[in-house]
Amino acid sequence: MSDVTIWTLDWVPEGPRGFVRDLRLRWACEEAGISYAVRTVAFDDRATNHLDQQPFGQVPFLQDGDIEIFESGAGVLHLAEKSETLMPRDAEDRANTRQWMFAALNSIEIVSVPWWFLRMSGRKDNELCGWVDSRLNQIEDVLSTREWLVADRFTAADLLMADVLRVADVRAHGNRPATEAYVARAIARPAFRKAEADQLAHFAAADAERTA
Amino acid sequence: MSDVTIWTLDWVPEGPRGFVRDLRLRWACEEAGISYAVRTVAFDDRATNHLDQQPFGQVPFLQDGDIEIFESGAGVLHLAEKSETLMPRDAEDRANTRQWMFAALNSIEIVSVPWWFLRMSGRKDNELCGWVDSRLNQIEDVLSTREWLVADRFTAADLLMADVLRVADVRAHGNRPATEAYVARAIARPAFRKAEADQLAHFAAADAERTA
Repeated sequence: MSDVTIWTLDWVPEGPRGFVRDLRLRWACEEAGISYAVRTVAFDDRATNHLDQQPFGQVPFLQDGDIEIFESGAGVLHLAEKSETLMPRDAEDRANTRQWMFAALNSIEIVSVPWWFLRMSGRKDNELCGWVDSRLNQIEDVLSTREWLVADRFTAADLLMADVLRVADVRAHGNRPATEAYVARAIARPAFRKAEADQLAHFAAADAERTA
Repeated sequence: MSDVTIWTLDWVPEGPRGFVRDLRLRWACEEAGISYAVRTVAFDDRATNHLDQQPFGQVPFLQDGDIEIFESGAGVLHLAEKSETLMPRDAEDRANTRQWMFAALNSIEIVSVPWWFLRMSGRKDNELCGWVDSRLNQIEDVLSTREWLVADRFTAADLLMADVLRVADVRAHGNRPATEAYVARAIARPAFRKAEADQLAHFAAADAERTA
């Protein structure tokens, strides 16, 4: 019997593998030693086949007993509160961890994901480049002064921030050594490597079923 | 002696008045009956004059005793946990409130703010229009079934969602009666009206000092 259940898609094409956001929940569970089962909704008709569970038709969502949570950020926060590994107990450190979790999503990802979307739409030079650039400069300044964001150790804030920066393709925006080293440090963690390998294996196994 | 301190800018031009995000914290305090003082950082040199308190050079940030929190979402979460008015105590309702807080910021605002930015950059028809449209359709479907997002009553989830939708200029994207009625319902609340009036008065008072 697993502690929690992580819901994701049954299959995705090659491109998004290693980036589907169940990775954030897997990573959090691996860091915190929370056991989890993985269940799936179908990739086909994914926009409408699980709106009862996720009103935007996205994955992941998390089940913990009677509690169901969509939004990967809310899921990571829920998991983090179950384990001091991810969320310090000290009130100030806890507030800092939570503020940086919101910052990862609402100050960096709010710019980096739409920038990426425009780039994918064929607009490599787009109106969001300057904004991404300035946010990445600001986070570079922060990361130049510390190894991890809060309490001199890895927390859920780093989990979200490193994942957001990993996807933002930092190097595409110029030379930011502190940020690059930070992301490298985060994804070298055994918990990330396990989570990533398991996601890749999950989708690879589905290839066989899909072509069978 | 106030319970908390909300930091914002000392002055802004007409355009952003009524929209500076200290409004979210003011609104939360008004709903929850938390007394607050307002302190300011200077509009001039705002990008760099308070990086110690807010590494992205933004406002607002919140002080509660020894705890300092930037990111308006994190600030609203902190305030909400001080009051059942904003955050139900029931575990499922609480998880739902938090998930919808993240959804407001990370599923709606992550699209609506960059869309708005492109529109302000002179690109009225831009690559993000379709994405905004589909997210607003999804939230319209949700709001067609309920008056408030969680627990049949106003919570911190509605505070953030209504503010995000208010700024997203829903009507510019087409006819979405449930969403428009929801936003109207939220901003008709005495706590919102007080918070908005106080923000407008704060910046208007600064006009006089600036021209003195």
